Amino acid sequence: MNKKIPVGILGATGTVGQRFIQLLAAHPWFEVEWLAASDRSAGKTYAEAAKWNLSIPLPERIARMTVSPSEPGKAPKLIFAALDAKAAREIESAFAAAGHAVVSNSSAFRMQEDVPLVIPEVNGDHIALVKHQAWYKHNGGFMVTNPNCSTIGLVLALAPLHRRFEVDKVFVATMQAISGAGYPGVASMDILGNVIPYIVNEEDKMEAESRKLLGSLQGAGVAPADLSLSAHCNRVAVEDGHTESVSIKLRRPAQAEEIIAAWQEFRCLPQKLKLPTAPEQPVIYDPAPDRPQPRLDRDRGQGMSAVTGRLRPCNIFDWKFTVLSHNTIRGAAGAAVLNGELLKAQGYIG
Amino acid sequence: MNKKIPVGILGATGTVGQRFIQLLAAHPWFEVEWLAASDRSAGKTYAEAAKWNLSIPLPERIARMTVSPSEPGKAPKLIFAALDAKAAREIESAFAAAGHAVVSNSSAFRMQEDVPLVIPEVNGDHIALVKHQAWYKHNGGFMVTNPNCSTIGLVLALAPLHRRFEVDKVFVATMQAISGAGYPGVASMDILGNVIPYIVNEEDKMEAESRKLLGSLQGAGVAPADLSLSAHCNRVAVEDGHTESVSIKLRRPAQAEEIIAAWQEFRCLPQKLKLPTAPEQPVIYDPAPDRPQPRLDRDRGQGMSAVTGRLRPCNIFDWKFTVLSHNTIRGAAGAAVLNGELLKAQGYIG
Amino acid sequence: MNKKIPVGILGATGTVGQRFIQLLAAHPWFEVEWLAASDRSAGKTYAEAAKWNLSIPLPERIARMTVSPSEPGKAPKLIFAALDAKAAREIESAFAAAGHAVVSNSSAFRMQEDVPLVIPEVNGDHIALVKHQAWYKHNGGFMVTNPNCSTIGLVLALAPLHRRFEVDKVFVATMQAISGAGYPGVASMDILGNVIPYIVNEEDKMEAESRKLLGSLQGAGVAPADLSLSAHCNRVAVEDGHTESVSIKLRRPAQAEEIIAAWQEFRCLPQKLKLPTAPEQPVIYDPAPDRPQPRLDRDRGQGMSAVTGRLRPCNIFDWKFTVLSHNTIRGAAGAAVLNGELLKAQGYIG
Amino acid sequence: MNKKIPVGILGATGTVGQRFIQLLAAHPWFEVEWLAASDRSAGKTYAEAAKWNLSIPLPERIARMTVSPSEPGKAPKLIFAALDAKAAREIESAFAAAGHAVVSNSSAFRMQEDVPLVIPEVNGDHIALVKHQAWYKHNGGFMVTNPNCSTIGLVLALAPLHRRFEVDKVFVATMQAISGAGYPGVASMDILGNVIPYIVNEEDKMEAESRKLLGSLQGAGVAPADLSLSAHCNRVAVEDGHTESVSIKLRRPAQAEEIIAAWQEFRCLPQKLKLPTAPEQPVIYDPAPDRPQPRLDRDRGQGMSAVTGRLRPCNIFDWKFTVLSHNTIRGAAGAAVLNGELLKAQGYIG
Repeated sequence: MNKKIPVGILGATGTVGQRFIQLLAAHPWFEVEWLAASDRSAGKTYAEAAKWNLSIPLPERIARMTVSPSEPGKAPKLIFAALDAKAAREIESAFAAAGHAVVSNSSAFRMQEDVPLVIPEVNGDHIALVKHQAWYKHNGGFMVTNPNCSTIGLVLALAPLHRRFEVDKVFVATMQAISGAGYPGVASMDILGNVIPYIVNEEDKMEAESRKLLGSLQGAGVAPADLSLSAHCNRVAVEDGHTESVSIKLRRPAQAEEIIAAWQEFRCLPQKLKLPTAPEQPVIYDPAPDRPQPRLDRDRGQGMSAVTGRLRPCNIFDWKFTVLSHNTIRGAAGAAVLNGELLKAQGYIG
Repeated sequence: MNKKIPVGILGATGTVGQRFIQLLAAHPWFEVEWLAASDRSAGKTYAEAAKWNLSIPLPERIARMTVSPSEPGKAPKLIFAALDAKAAREIESAFAAAGHAVVSNSSAFRMQEDVPLVIPEVNGDHIALVKHQAWYKHNGGFMVTNPNCSTIGLVLALAPLHRRFEVDKVFVATMQAISGAGYPGVASMDILGNVIPYIVNEEDKMEAESRKLLGSLQGAGVAPADLSLSAHCNRVAVEDGHTESVSIKLRRPAQAEEIIAAWQEFRCLPQKLKLPTAPEQPVIYDPAPDRPQPRLDRDRGQGMSAVTGRLRPCNIFDWKFTVLSHNTIRGAAGAAVLNGELLKAQGYIG
Repeated sequence: MNKKIPVGILGATGTVGQRFIQLLAAHPWFEVEWLAASDRSAGKTYAEAAKWNLSIPLPERIARMTVSPSEPGKAPKLIFAALDAKAAREIESAFAAAGHAVVSNSSAFRMQEDVPLVIPEVNGDHIALVKHQAWYKHNGGFMVTNPNCSTIGLVLALAPLHRRFEVDKVFVATMQAISGAGYPGVASMDILGNVIPYIVNEEDKMEAESRKLLGSLQGAGVAPADLSLSAHCNRVAVEDGHTESVSIKLRRPAQAEEIIAAWQEFRCLPQKLKLPTAPEQPVIYDPAPDRPQPRLDRDRGQGMSAVTGRLRPCNIFDWKFTVLSHNTIRGAAGAAVLNGELLKAQGYIG
Repeated sequence: MNKKIPVGILGATGTVGQRFIQLLAAHPWFEVEWLAASDRSAGKTYAEAAKWNLSIPLPERIARMTVSPSEPGKAPKLIFAALDAKAAREIESAFAAAGHAVVSNSSAFRMQEDVPLVIPEVNGDHIALVKHQAWYKHNGGFMVTNPNCSTIGLVLALAPLHRRFEVDKVFVATMQAISGAGYPGVASMDILGNVIPYIVNEEDKMEAESRKLLGSLQGAGVAPADLSLSAHCNRVAVEDGHTESVSIKLRRPAQAEEIIAAWQEFRCLPQKLKLPTAPEQPVIYDPAPDRPQPRLDRDRGQGMSAVTGRLRPCNIFDWKFTVLSHNTIRGAAGAAVLNGELLKAQGYIG
């Protein structure tokens, strides 16, 4: 029987790092063998270093592992990275330069021309970009990124429509969960009984990333999709799950049933390859009048499905709807794990 | 010295009814002399009948008043009404037919052609419509309404722009407070740590009411404004204060400073007439990057100012911004009291 | 291979009824074959009748089942009941009288002398009381109850101490989750950003039930334990999980380590009998200074373990600590299912 | 007419510092003329330095004031201090040593023998202790402190009972608001939908401070009251207002009416002296079965009254009840301002 592929986690003690540990705890292909965090944590056991913040128990084996400094040295080839953008810029490139396959959740390199920004259901083919990376040519190291947590749910809902009807314009207003800001993140005095109508850089990320994700490979880069997107990003008092109000204009006319069918029938590379973390149904349409809701729907498809609902005509564009996805699973750690699985299935690693 | 004008309250025990009592407690022109509620409450003292739900104390005088049945009989001429639409349809028209001046917060008659739907800062002149009402002609009774709580903040923000630059298209996504649903209203299990992306009929109301409010008097009716509006209405875990993400397209170009000036300089009839409940500044622009927020800004202008913020270019329409207003003060009871004051100032009552 | 035992659920559409469905969905011994709810629901499919309020999906098979009226007729022998006290008084006794084994979560019959009030880990032997019930003698019907949701966590923590050191006096102040009040239950305007220091009858229930649970069988009844308990019950803005601050006076001196050992080593009948719903460890002591917490600890032992923490000296009594348990699993549906399993393991049904 | 007394604020930008600004904004005796905060803030205007976190607007005059470093130099004689314990230990003593009257909210010196720990309604006479302070003898500087936010509400409720019936034993379990932890303070991920059963040192403070407050002057110190107190401190998702469940044993028997009368009739030095911040009624008994509640009752007496409710027999001690007080007004800034007023009224300053 096969030995599992050893993997490492950068930023292992943070909110997304903890989700990596959860999702990789019983993973059929990968085994966490190396954990790194800030210098403050290095040398401690993981249990000492991390304030475990999930309701599922911290696995015993991980609890006892020693946290390494964030340096390539003894790390395994495949690295899942949950660093903030500033740390990522330096550390992740050091790992790629040292020959590692870096599957990053950070925004630092997402928009770099030769770095694939990938949702496997949407643009798995972009992963081939890694071959154009200087790191790759140099010693086989490379980097793959997943989009921002608020982008993923939206683009999962847009992708099947874009394929069939071409999306022209998108308005989106988000209501984002606090876990998206990490820990300690949002102060309780700022969000209890409140809304914060601002998340630094979030709107720009949604706009740029969506066009790259829905764009097409062109030589050593991606030609962004020809669509306009305008985002309003808000923080609300929800633990997990980003809810988004969306209006879309399509280039080809579509009936409600066609849109719903596009969502319900959407099956892609990860489903065909039976990637372990791929949900059976990447986009689920819920016909109830008041769904999706973060508390009730964020865990559908083990937190990997985007849930759409409330499809109805828009009296400015064509259609409006709500989309929800789990921001630290599908929107972060699960997105990266799925990218890692795609890399493995396509022979980039292992 | 002058005696105050006696007023009555229909639906006095509910969430909006309680706000009426708060706002009228020390009113310089009006004195509450009659309270009515459902048959279940009639005959009890107000203190017994109402579950007082505000943090300011219930005034002693009101506490001891006896709740009347919802019938014209002994009620004063001027009636503030906080009934749900179904009850309003029957009861409010009975009061108007009996010669009362009904200042209603309900949606029942808002869109009826000869019923003025008024925000005094926006379309105070529409109040003249009452003279076309059959009730008025018959025995001097009439009805004036204020818009839905989610419409008011938006239209306060749009009105000064509409005057100067003409609003063509509006996208709005709301994050509405639980008090908007009355009491008991939203179940805690539905909203704690959650978002409900649906409020019955709310989107239709916003769309229709905005056009009537920004429209112009034309004979015995209102020619609705020529603008398109598409609304997404959501409920969030906030006690009071509706926050709205807005994108607008204008017919005449406007610079950011011009828009901000239009808001900051907006002064209207209620300010000129020095109506007691009129805020000094109906629209306040807050330049902080993360404002307005319901917890911090809903009480500005004693809850009667709409607060705008985050003005920035929209890459589909022209501009986007956030607007906030207190849903049970400016959005309901305060709106009606201001309408009542306008009626008095213009000689319709008193 | 064995056929499963068919079971019915009374009050199947409510908060606790839904937890029954969750816990019985893949149960190794029991199969839900009959669902009943109020007349309003009878005749509809379960999916139509219930507002499913859990984040795990409603099982397809259950969704399609037709809801029956709450009458014995075609119901299976074993009935799990999640009715409010008033409905229970009439309906549950009708089922027992008709020969059913009623495993009830209601308070209606808990304190009746010949009705066992059982936590299998604490007083499984009390179940023998059913043989004294008139129903049982008449036609084999009987009734078993589990305690109130706030009592269970407390008594799980007290029982191992009572055995070793005898509990003399108990102060307890609860912070109870909203789900304990059912649906719609607590209005959001009452609990968002708030505490309600009152739950009807809850303090009396905790005091009386604890003494019966820790008491001993004596002929056809239970001699209550000789201990005093004073409860303060509060509602807080938590979805699931009751947290309780407890001070205890013991009759025999105990060191901290002995108390912790008593909790950690506590294994009882359900563990010996390997009842499917029994947690491996009924009481878990968490040594972290700030635990247990409802969000993080309510699901330990699949929601069936009570979690204790913060053991420290009390400067009036001997010790103080915090205890937490999941109020709709261990505190309601899970408690009843475990009682049902004990009945089956001991030959009362099946 | 009199010039106001100039005052300074140490720790002016924090949660309690902001409440000082609010309470002193229109104070009839005091005028804020000096603001200090950490070195990071010094030199900026207050508006730049502080993240204003109250729903009442920041006064214009304060907004434009320049923040000073936390050094005596140019500060006025009377200083209100809102520093954390560690900073207070050094800075507050430096101010006292430099001849300032320091009215401190910090825990640093509360239990020091010659430092008065004062609630004016409870032990205003203790203020005379300042004359024993070395600072005072040296150059007229001195220090007065108020208790911890969770202690004040409790002791306000105990004091009138202690006078009439002598309190022997007290159990108290608190449910404390997030604002008590300052800003950013409690992370939203820790408290949203959660309870934290732990606040560092809080239980010890409540126990020690209560005895000192209810104790009696004895020479150059205070003989603590002869009572036992056991506290359980919890954090809940409430913005402002600490709710406490209390059981008490009295040395002299008391009927419910006598206890309620003791609370309702409690009037003390601050009421006699008509101190501007003193509430008319320091303890208000609310007879409703489900009160006090933080959202509804924290602002009674302008946030300076403690509200008691739910008086009922305790079956271990004599009585149990709930008490609530506003933790950043009566429990912090308002407490200190009232102490400052008492100092002025008694000729220690001004």
